[in-house]
Amino acid sequence: MSPTVVVTRRAHFNAAHRLFNPAWSDAENARVFGPCANPNAHGHNYNLDVSVAGGVDPGTGFVLDIKVLKDLIEEHVLRRLDHRNLNLDVPEFAATNPTAENIVVQCWRWLAPAIPAGKLVRIVLWETDRNLVEYTGG
Amino acid sequence: MSPTVVVTRRAHFNAAHRLFNPAWSDAENARVFGPCANPNAHGHNYNLDVSVAGGVDPGTGFVLDIKVLKDLIEEHVLRRLDHRNLNLDVPEFAATNPTAENIVVQCWRWLAPAIPAGKLVRIVLWETDRNLVEYTGG
Amino acid sequence: MSPTVVVTRRAHFNAAHRLFNPAWSDAENARVFGPCANPNAHGHNYNLDVSVAGGVDPGTGFVLDIKVLKDLIEEHVLRRLDHRNLNLDVPEFAATNPTAENIVVQCWRWLAPAIPAGKLVRIVLWETDRNLVEYTGG
Amino acid sequence: MSPTVVVTRRAHFNAAHRLFNPAWSDAENARVFGPCANPNAHGHNYNLDVSVAGGVDPGTGFVLDIKVLKDLIEEHVLRRLDHRNLNLDVPEFAATNPTAENIVVQCWRWLAPAIPAGKLVRIVLWETDRNLVEYTGG
Amino acid sequence: MSPTVVVTRRAHFNAAHRLFNPAWSDAENARVFGPCANPNAHGHNYNLDVSVAGGVDPGTGFVLDIKVLKDLIEEHVLRRLDHRNLNLDVPEFAATNPTAENIVVQCWRWLAPAIPAGKLVRIVLWETDRNLVEYTGG
Amino acid sequence: MSPTVVVTRRAHFNAAHRLFNPAWSDAENARVFGPCANPNAHGHNYNLDVSVAGGVDPGTGFVLDIKVLKDLIEEHVLRRLDHRNLNLDVPEFAATNPTAENIVVQCWRWLAPAIPAGKLVRIVLWETDRNLVEYTGG
Repeated sequence: MSPTVVVTRRAHFNAAHRLFNPAWSDAENARVFGPCANPNAHGHNYNLDVSVAGGVDPGTGFVLDIKVLKDLIEEHVLRRLDHRNLNLDVPEFAATNPTAENIVVQCWRWLAPAIPAGKLVRIVLWETDRNLVEYTGG
Repeated sequence: MSPTVVVTRRAHFNAAHRLFNPAWSDAENARVFGPCANPNAHGHNYNLDVSVAGGVDPGTGFVLDIKVLKDLIEEHVLRRLDHRNLNLDVPEFAATNPTAENIVVQCWRWLAPAIPAGKLVRIVLWETDRNLVEYTGG
Repeated sequence: MSPTVVVTRRAHFNAAHRLFNPAWSDAENARVFGPCANPNAHGHNYNLDVSVAGGVDPGTGFVLDIKVLKDLIEEHVLRRLDHRNLNLDVPEFAATNPTAENIVVQCWRWLAPAIPAGKLVRIVLWETDRNLVEYTGG
Repeated sequence: MSPTVVVTRRAHFNAAHRLFNPAWSDAENARVFGPCANPNAHGHNYNLDVSVAGGVDPGTGFVLDIKVLKDLIEEHVLRRLDHRNLNLDVPEFAATNPTAENIVVQCWRWLAPAIPAGKLVRIVLWETDRNLVEYTGG
Repeated sequence: MSPTVVVTRRAHFNAAHRLFNPAWSDAENARVFGPCANPNAHGHNYNLDVSVAGGVDPGTGFVLDIKVLKDLIEEHVLRRLDHRNLNLDVPEFAATNPTAENIVVQCWRWLAPAIPAGKLVRIVLWETDRNLVEYTGG
Repeated sequence: MSPTVVVTRRAHFNAAHRLFNPAWSDAENARVFGPCANPNAHGHNYNLDVSVAGGVDPGTGFVLDIKVLKDLIEEHVLRRLDHRNLNLDVPEFAATNPTAENIVVQCWRWLAPAIPAGKLVRIVLWETDRNLVEYTGG
């Protein structure tokens, strides 16, 4: 049986967002989210590490061609999020606060059904060099 | 005479912006700036490297205390730009396109008069890990 | 049920230490620890990655506010270790060798009881860019 | 009982390789592997993160001396791969395509029997800053 | 008069090479270049930082559109060097040793005539994270 | 005439230090240097970038062999500073405050006379990822 390896591709996107719960008053949003609730938005260079686990194909030596994984991330995630305002331009965050936690879970929902070989096992989203979140589907 | 050393402090800020020339039509802005002209903005984690040159003080061994430089960057730059929408929240970019080039020159104008020892000699602004600009006051 | 996400905050501290077992002779310490046993100490810029897992709060979109996590790391770890000599200034390392392994376990003991939401699941301590240790509480 | 900690050492090597399945025609190799099948090879700066888990020795405070781990990686991996053409200079890749997946599994086979304390638990191989693979022995 | 700003774009390429002077004996090449003279080549992930200085255009706020600079680097450098064996696949290095020094000078010769606005002022080539060269046209 | 290229080698060392002017009272040292004056020292992972400029040798394609530069940095700098307490173990800092400014100037004095080909043109010393100093001999 071929060994199981995890393959990870790192992608980048630039986006604006505002931490904001539309069910709350402006004062409540400002109290909870501080400067992150600035109505005109701020932004980030996000890094996204997408990991797929599977057996190594004896013919190619690949779990899946990392170029295929790169293209899937572009099609299913970057096309929706790159150079966007997450609150205003992305329907999934119209009513859901675009925190790193909610973004990483949404990326999983977009990507998991699209992986053609192996299985999506982990997504890490870096909001800054010091703040990151990780989701494994649970 | 004491040697002349350049001291650099790196700071970070997160901001949204839109590349946009208000004197142009929307179509012209879209043609020139592409996805960077998205009306709802996108954003970045900016890094800012501020460099001051001067003689080394024989008493302290400092050109200037880097903690002082850190505080000056917070007061003169980060307080204005961090967690802001550059086009909408920063008066200096109300009519000036907030490209990396224009931001770095504006940071110089804010910081140069405030340096208490030595002389501001270089500011580098990183918009992403691959795109950066550098200004030396000329 | 809300998804479970791991949130990580990276912190930094600068400290001096000496690898040294007080129960051994100087010669034995020198033999085992080499230049790391230098009596006058050497030092490092440590990075500390603290990870908390939990359900995403539907109101905030957070597992826990990462600013809260940042403040807890400052209160429980950085206040004790930053700009210190680990052997001489930190009671927990008076009789315990401040190896990366022992430091990361001690950080866990300080932080685990303090996490207000979710659960501490992993701490990674980087002693240099090439040497790191990881503890998950076992 | 002493806590269990994972210790990781990062190593580097520079190598040339060509993605190529000798059982296939040149056209098939070009179709599957694209520019990576260039007959004259291309190359990478590889990073290799080797992780060993074990109890912390009460005398040394180490799982294993990271200098020992460094030396084992040099002896068992770098001596074979650094400054080499993986296809032409490394017998294990004469008939096996030197994809990142196959390299990381081979590094495990070389290293696992050599670890003197604790147990090899993870190897991560970075082919570029954006492409990496991880193997845990399964 | 508009301020003069330096704009830098970082690009990447992966290549194999061998340090080798065809005018010397194999023994002389091995003595001077050590493992870098391995006949079957080794390789690197190269980073290339290309810097252009010029006045900031009042309409666009750009020295030159960094996307244009990115495309020029792809056309004039990456198309020639990426996924290649520098000695065997690149005519300019058929008789010239592909050291970092010679590569960076060659990149300058390819790029300098192509810059449409501003002036090429610096190219930095990173062969590894610790070895780099810089050329300013002199 | 051969082009002039700048070659840079990055080296690392780990050291403890205390910012302290022995001519001042303890209170004055604490007031000026804050936690950096901690009598038991703290420490850093320093990075040192040493740059040599010169003509490219037509035979080797080198300004100078970067392995030679690496060895010179080890002999003239790392042997003195790595795994040391700068104040207590290094005679040059017995009476001179080991600030980053004073360290970088001292490294220049050690290295400049030793460079066998080309000319030392710049040394950059990183005390942390955010604090660095640069000396060009003036």
